[in-house]
Amino acid sequence: MTYCIGIRLNAGLVFLSDSRTNAGMDQISTYRKMMIYEKPGDRFMVMLSAGNLSISQSVREILQVEKIDRGPEQPALTIWNADSMFDATRVLGAAVRRVYDQDGPSLKATGVDFNASMIFGGQIKGEAMRMFLVYSAGNFIEATRETCFFQIGESKYGKPILDRVLTPTTPLDEAAKCALVSMDSTLKSNLSVGLPLDLLVYQEGRLESSDHVCIDDRNPYFQMIHSTWGQRLREVFEGIDDPRWDGGDTEHPLLAPSRRYEPMRKINHPGERIV
Amino acid sequence: MTYCIGIRLNAGLVFLSDSRTNAGMDQISTYRKMMIYEKPGDRFMVMLSAGNLSISQSVREILQVEKIDRGPEQPALTIWNADSMFDATRVLGAAVRRVYDQDGPSLKATGVDFNASMIFGGQIKGEAMRMFLVYSAGNFIEATRETCFFQIGESKYGKPILDRVLTPTTPLDEAAKCALVSMDSTLKSNLSVGLPLDLLVYQEGRLESSDHVCIDDRNPYFQMIHSTWGQRLREVFEGIDDPRWDGGDTEHPLLAPSRRYEPMRKINHPGERIV
Repeated sequence: MTYCIGIRLNAGLVFLSDSRTNAGMDQISTYRKMMIYEKPGDRFMVMLSAGNLSISQSVREILQVEKIDRGPEQPALTIWNADSMFDATRVLGAAVRRVYDQDGPSLKATGVDFNASMIFGGQIKGEAMRMFLVYSAGNFIEATRETCFFQIGESKYGKPILDRVLTPTTPLDEAAKCALVSMDSTLKSNLSVGLPLDLLVYQEGRLESSDHVCIDDRNPYFQMIHSTWGQRLREVFEGIDDPRWDGGDTEHPLLAPSRRYEPMRKINHPGERIV
Repeated sequence: MTYCIGIRLNAGLVFLSDSRTNAGMDQISTYRKMMIYEKPGDRFMVMLSAGNLSISQSVREILQVEKIDRGPEQPALTIWNADSMFDATRVLGAAVRRVYDQDGPSLKATGVDFNASMIFGGQIKGEAMRMFLVYSAGNFIEATRETCFFQIGESKYGKPILDRVLTPTTPLDEAAKCALVSMDSTLKSNLSVGLPLDLLVYQEGRLESSDHVCIDDRNPYFQMIHSTWGQRLREVFEGIDDPRWDGGDTEHPLLAPSRRYEPMRKINHPGERIV
């Protein structure tokens, strides 16, 4: 599996991906899942991919040369001449569909789903930063102020912390930290997600990749996150009162009767009363 | 969907279940998913169920009367006369298979999976407490010292905190708190899990249900967990240093070069260098 996060903030974009790929438990490999496409000063785009590796590698390869015909009056649309991230994402959708045309029928014949999803975000000169989630049919949705992040792959373990922290006004470094905490929880609970991680932070308006790092198990910052977060979480957990069944004079009684619901159903041994 | 947790500790058992059921987004209902089967002083058993509601309701109903034939010499095996939780769980497996025989072919004909899973735990006089996870084929696995909890339904959001906290020596009330925190994270991130909750804590050797409560949105303890956990989590999060891209003299630099891995791949505009 895979776990990738893309975040669109007012201040910029954050991308984080793991690098584990598995085709069954005895076929585990390391593949990086982040790719940067850029023309410094003009456009900066990042793709994160999840799903079937043969599909995402093909999409990645095709994307740099994919064209959408715009008739004789205009040059074909590519990610290099698109005026907007929306149009660039249409090109990505077309690349996905091209791979589907090539491989879909054979995959189907062998019972393999055409399964791939991509986070595609960036900025093209003259336009605001944008981020899209592209599905395996080549269709896509865009991140908004209300929903400012996308996850692909093993997304559930790490979702609660993103839900609790991220808003469009979150500073870039804090969002990067949040993504790393989310990744740490996922690594802890799911073996199919693994190091190294690729982290990239893009500042609004730069139009080229600036801050990125490949994080392995020796990275001091990620080691700190890993040990501190787990330990502090335990401290917070221990700092919250345990529930008290004996009543006592606790401030937050557990044994408050529900207003609407009856006590639990119980089936007693037959011959006795059934509540 | 559903989210249920069963925990087997040295001190006893903890069961927690939500009560949301949905058959599509416009068919959302409240169904309790915990059932107690008991003969005080002799046996105490709890079943939590997830999956297709028609299946789990049928299993629940059949379980109290299900029999496994043991030949002419012995009375048929039931949950009421089983000498061990293992045998009682075999009866539960037989109940699942009976429902499969009744409903499986028709479900299959309409394209519905026979999807159900159950956590079944308790204690029978003369035996230690045991807990099992029963699959839709009626087969099952048992919780052990190394893996002391089971989850069914929407289990991923709430797994990291269980992974971090629970061991067989965790006290009962702390485990109940942990289950509630896990449920709170799941409720926050997934609409298909909902209140009220059923919480039951069983003390080793009691052989009858003792501490249980139905928790709705007015429950003071759960309200406290809900607000405190989210707030403290944010405080801990804010208390961890942000990553610094500018280097600086930070104690935990983010920009440590990876020992094994190269920097990220970048595709520049064609005509330029491709790294």
